[in-house]
Amino acid sequence: MERIWIDRRSILAGLLVSAAATPLAGRALAQHDPLPSWNDGRSKKSILDFVSAVTREGAPDFVPVSERIATFDNDGTLWCEQPMYVQLAFALDRVKAMASKHPEWKQTQPFKAVLDNDMAALAKGGEKGLVELVMATHAGMTTSEFEQVASDWIKTARHPKFDRPYTDLVYQPMLELLTYLRVNSFKTFIVSGGGIEFMRPWSERVYGIPPEQVVGSSIKTQFKVDRDGPVLIRLPSIDLIDDGPGKPVGINSHIGRRPIAAFGNSDGDFQMLQWATAAPGRRFGLIVHHTDSEREYSYDRKSPFGKLDKALDAAPSNGWTVASMKDDWKRVFAFQ
Amino acid sequence: MERIWIDRRSILAGLLVSAAATPLAGRALAQHDPLPSWNDGRSKKSILDFVSAVTREGAPDFVPVSERIATFDNDGTLWCEQPMYVQLAFALDRVKAMASKHPEWKQTQPFKAVLDNDMAALAKGGEKGLVELVMATHAGMTTSEFEQVASDWIKTARHPKFDRPYTDLVYQPMLELLTYLRVNSFKTFIVSGGGIEFMRPWSERVYGIPPEQVVGSSIKTQFKVDRDGPVLIRLPSIDLIDDGPGKPVGINSHIGRRPIAAFGNSDGDFQMLQWATAAPGRRFGLIVHHTDSEREYSYDRKSPFGKLDKALDAAPSNGWTVASMKDDWKRVFAFQ
Repeated sequence: MERIWIDRRSILAGLLVSAAATPLAGRALAQHDPLPSWNDGRSKKSILDFVSAVTREGAPDFVPVSERIATFDNDGTLWCEQPMYVQLAFALDRVKAMASKHPEWKQTQPFKAVLDNDMAALAKGGEKGLVELVMATHAGMTTSEFEQVASDWIKTARHPKFDRPYTDLVYQPMLELLTYLRVNSFKTFIVSGGGIEFMRPWSERVYGIPPEQVVGSSIKTQFKVDRDGPVLIRLPSIDLIDDGPGKPVGINSHIGRRPIAAFGNSDGDFQMLQWATAAPGRRFGLIVHHTDSEREYSYDRKSPFGKLDKALDAAPSNGWTVASMKDDWKRVFAFQ
Repeated sequence: MERIWIDRRSILAGLLVSAAATPLAGRALAQHDPLPSWNDGRSKKSILDFVSAVTREGAPDFVPVSERIATFDNDGTLWCEQPMYVQLAFALDRVKAMASKHPEWKQTQPFKAVLDNDMAALAKGGEKGLVELVMATHAGMTTSEFEQVASDWIKTARHPKFDRPYTDLVYQPMLELLTYLRVNSFKTFIVSGGGIEFMRPWSERVYGIPPEQVVGSSIKTQFKVDRDGPVLIRLPSIDLIDDGPGKPVGINSHIGRRPIAAFGNSDGDFQMLQWATAAPGRRFGLIVHHTDSEREYSYDRKSPFGKLDKALDAAPSNGWTVASMKDDWKRVFAFQ
């Protein structure tokens, strides 16, 4: 009975916290484990200590609700980014789907490499080739057309190793962390190098993060009134690369406050971690370290996707928690 | 006693609605006037009818909470924009404050015009001159330095006609409307041609709208780590002009959903009104028409600030409510 009563209190607390104060939530949560997929250890303890410190009214590190902003990288931090970024898999599938209308792609790189499934040739094209792929597949349509295409794809595409929809490959411990923070009146944001309009159609359903709390890379759009009414056309021109030093820029533009907690997994998150943690008051930074070749993947310093090198070296002196997927996570995915 | 009891219910409803459903709020509000500064009439009725239609569960026009997005222009819609945009008054004051460090300004337009209080010469410089003023006064410092400067100014500057702080010159009927929408689980956003970082320092205190729900014009920023740690430098380069056709662009970038209600007062809001209302489902658009030369100002088609011409002509065919400040508002400002 006691357990049931506690859970009902937690649910009630969850309903109340976004508007009201948190002493109730704090008390209710102290009595059960809000992070059941995290093994007991230093990483889990560092999260619990931080949240407890900033939410205890009257305590020296207390942070008012409005300033409880937490930012999360997406690829490799909230969901799987191997063997390639999900959005790249989407772009490759789009090239194949659109190829019949572009016969010239059979002879033109980087499209030829995609159609031939020649990943070595694609890699040779470097970033320039990738940008070309993104522009050809992500621009030249209205925002609502793109939303439809991205939504349809995410519903049917499957991960090559796990043979499941990509949205199944979200990390259960991170979902619990998102919920735990929200129950403690944090506002949770995604701040991703990935495309903002690629994530928004499913971020609320999968992470509980609404479109207006998603920050990502973007291309320019243009307003137009056509026969069907007003539309926004996606232009083949980069607006923001929300990666590396672009993350604090995106955070400032979209959120307008400095986060007090940031979560990442790669050097692309380095500056976001700095921006969130190198400021007065209690702050928290965490790096997800991919150390689990059995349940997920093991990679860091040399990975083409999600390279973690400088940020890993900088973690100790900045006081960032490095969470080892293998040691700190009881489960990686909900289905395991 | 009855009245007190109802108000307490309303307050409780206000606390609950951002997380929970709204039947309680709906019932409580039905019993008192949520818009006491609005005269009874077509404008007020159109607002009440719209909110009632989209919040009644099971009704044909019901809109789920997550889609209840309302966008508000700022200058002339939420606060006074005469005799000039408040941010322009800020820029002029900044030029004067910074002049001792820029002796060359005494001989250079548009700065000379500002220092000479020569508004005719300033107007002659047109938009190019204004952009120069904005860049000289808004760029070349960190985001936190600018926030400090803007916050300090808004605390001390006074409106030339009303001799009050500018933040007193917010429209009481619009404050009530913001609250009424929020109590009915709308998320309220500012979408202004004004500078995003000029509004954010005080938008939560004055309007109850947090920085992350403020969209505005912006200049580019650059991340840098200097001796004091990470900073964002404001660059003299325009990022977004969040006005006219730029408003739907800003809405799409920051909110990622199409509003179901939009509120403006000038041709700069025309495309936002189109974007919000020309879509399937019940929608609402409202134009504040400045018709009150006694309590505020009377202007529309020929005003240099807040020109309302095309949008006024387009209102009837688009079903937009045109609220006359003189006839529809019992009070304009809280102090009157």
